[in-house]
Amino acid sequence: MNQHLSPTIAASSMELSAEMAAENVVEFTDLPVKRQREDEENGVSKTVSTLPNETQPLGISAVIPGWFSEISPMWPGEAHSLKVEKILFQGKSDYQNVMVFQSSTYGKVLVLDGVIQLTERDECAYQEMITHLPLCSIPNPKKVLVIGGGDGGVLREVSRHSSVEKIDICEIDKMVVDVSKEFFPDIAVGFEDPRVTLHVGDGVAFLKAAPEGTYDAIIVDSSDPIGPAQELFEKPFFESVAKALRPGGVVCTQAESIWLHMHIIEDIVANCRQIFKGSVNYAWTTVPTYPSGMIGFMLCSTEGPHVDFKHPVNPIDEDDSQQSARPLKFYNSEIHTAAFCLPSFAKRAIGSKAN
Amino acid sequence: MNQHLSPTIAASSMELSAEMAAENVVEFTDLPVKRQREDEENGVSKTVSTLPNETQPLGISAVIPGWFSEISPMWPGEAHSLKVEKILFQGKSDYQNVMVFQSSTYGKVLVLDGVIQLTERDECAYQEMITHLPLCSIPNPKKVLVIGGGDGGVLREVSRHSSVEKIDICEIDKMVVDVSKEFFPDIAVGFEDPRVTLHVGDGVAFLKAAPEGTYDAIIVDSSDPIGPAQELFEKPFFESVAKALRPGGVVCTQAESIWLHMHIIEDIVANCRQIFKGSVNYAWTTVPTYPSGMIGFMLCSTEGPHVDFKHPVNPIDEDDSQQSARPLKFYNSEIHTAAFCLPSFAKRAIGSKAN
Repeated sequence: MNQHLSPTIAASSMELSAEMAAENVVEFTDLPVKRQREDEENGVSKTVSTLPNETQPLGISAVIPGWFSEISPMWPGEAHSLKVEKILFQGKSDYQNVMVFQSSTYGKVLVLDGVIQLTERDECAYQEMITHLPLCSIPNPKKVLVIGGGDGGVLREVSRHSSVEKIDICEIDKMVVDVSKEFFPDIAVGFEDPRVTLHVGDGVAFLKAAPEGTYDAIIVDSSDPIGPAQELFEKPFFESVAKALRPGGVVCTQAESIWLHMHIIEDIVANCRQIFKGSVNYAWTTVPTYPSGMIGFMLCSTEGPHVDFKHPVNPIDEDDSQQSARPLKFYNSEIHTAAFCLPSFAKRAIGSKAN
Repeated sequence: MNQHLSPTIAASSMELSAEMAAENVVEFTDLPVKRQREDEENGVSKTVSTLPNETQPLGISAVIPGWFSEISPMWPGEAHSLKVEKILFQGKSDYQNVMVFQSSTYGKVLVLDGVIQLTERDECAYQEMITHLPLCSIPNPKKVLVIGGGDGGVLREVSRHSSVEKIDICEIDKMVVDVSKEFFPDIAVGFEDPRVTLHVGDGVAFLKAAPEGTYDAIIVDSSDPIGPAQELFEKPFFESVAKALRPGGVVCTQAESIWLHMHIIEDIVANCRQIFKGSVNYAWTTVPTYPSGMIGFMLCSTEGPHVDFKHPVNPIDEDDSQQSARPLKFYNSEIHTAAFCLPSFAKRAIGSKAN
């Protein structure tokens, strides 16, 4: 792996002196330079850029001494912080900064470019919902593609579906896969399924090259639309997705928070309405360690057999799941249906864009 | 009002020097002394107690310089922070520390004992759900009691129900009412309804003195069970609530987060199962500025006409609401029903305690 490890540091606010603490104060703004410049021109980002240097732990945003703080122009004026017990890994891949730390109350935490991707304590909500919302909405899914999702959590969930015969995953950043296998065995376990084929590369290119009508379901487990995942929120990408799906096939993409990014969501919905001639729905779930404490999903189907996302036709039997080695922690058929019920402010905004 | 105002400070991490920043670092642990001692004996709180002094802004927890950070033994190891534009009010009532600040992206924020009670940006979710979940579940509510809720937001929501003839509110802390009227006119507007009678005093005593079978609905809008609201989570209080309700009357209480406080919730559910002989249900909603990004509600009914909380019989017509001066922002009948769908881990825990 192309990485450089820092010495493990025991980071506790009680142990650090005030001087050390002051040195530790970095606002995490090392976004890709081009994007940052755009933001500044648009007046989006007004934070002072303090890029990490060699003595500064790479990729950590320790604004509170001994804590990790998630500060980003994507959610200005607020930050969620987790207390750090120990930094387990830091590296810089060709695409992003990668960090793993042991938190004091959320288990191990995976951070990409300063943004929390998952914690052991609440990853179940995201992984189970982004996977089973689409897969439980169609009968007998057989071929599934995962774009992103290099931690393996979505694969782990896809594996629960016995009808599935082939699972392709295209992750751009090999370091994410390697780090997950080393530090998150209960998540990377998804890679052990013999139905899985890992393709390391660009998801956009992979989809363009995919034969038309190949997949029953595509799951886009991306990071936010700043950085390497930017293209995954744009129209040409959705067009490739639609092409690679069979008629009546389904896609589920990470689609931000209705509290924070309604304008991004409205754009995604408008794009999807144009491209997907079947169903187009928005759903959401609670994830405490994501900004605003929730995350949304865009669920669409191509022209063909009708897909009613709100009423799962392919339920995972909860009793079966309970008896398995890894019972479902979060997903069930009731919360599947509930996930599509939106607060009035979101319903109005998404509804109006959809027409 | 029994208060002392601090000079307004322009609090920006860019403007404060490192030295000033260091002085500003206070872990907010000034819980009532008795409770804090108990916590320490139980090994719950291991943070260092640094009580505010006269030079330190009272009640502020500025762990990130220029930001408000919510640190509490109720949610160890994590903190949500909001950037502070200006502190508008600080006071110490007979019961708690009261603070109002202008945040940079969440509007004005009300803080009690270091814990965010509401922000202008997301208060709609909590106020609308805690009010309409119970009131839309029974036909023609006439007499309503609010315990706590001194900001007036619940009153504002109760006012939407034209069947209601009498609204009593019992708030222990007059300072909360006065501060809300001064800084949150769009929330305190609830007090202007002529059906409202404000009783300043102890909710527990008020309920004990209430004639049996008085209310159709009781809404308990309390802070967390550390500090003045502690008794509102205990069995004798629920017994008083049941007594004060008419047969088939309903109560809705703030009931913490399934991600953080499942043990508290299990106890509340077990108590309620014993006391309320009608329906006992748990619901939740998203609130970005509450710990873990969500909050739960306990909904119970007394013996008498059956109440099916999951299917509102008394819907608020959304078109009516849209045409009114203050349309509903969050609540609708779909999200009412969805609020009762729980993630599997919570369903199992709450289900097992309920039997």
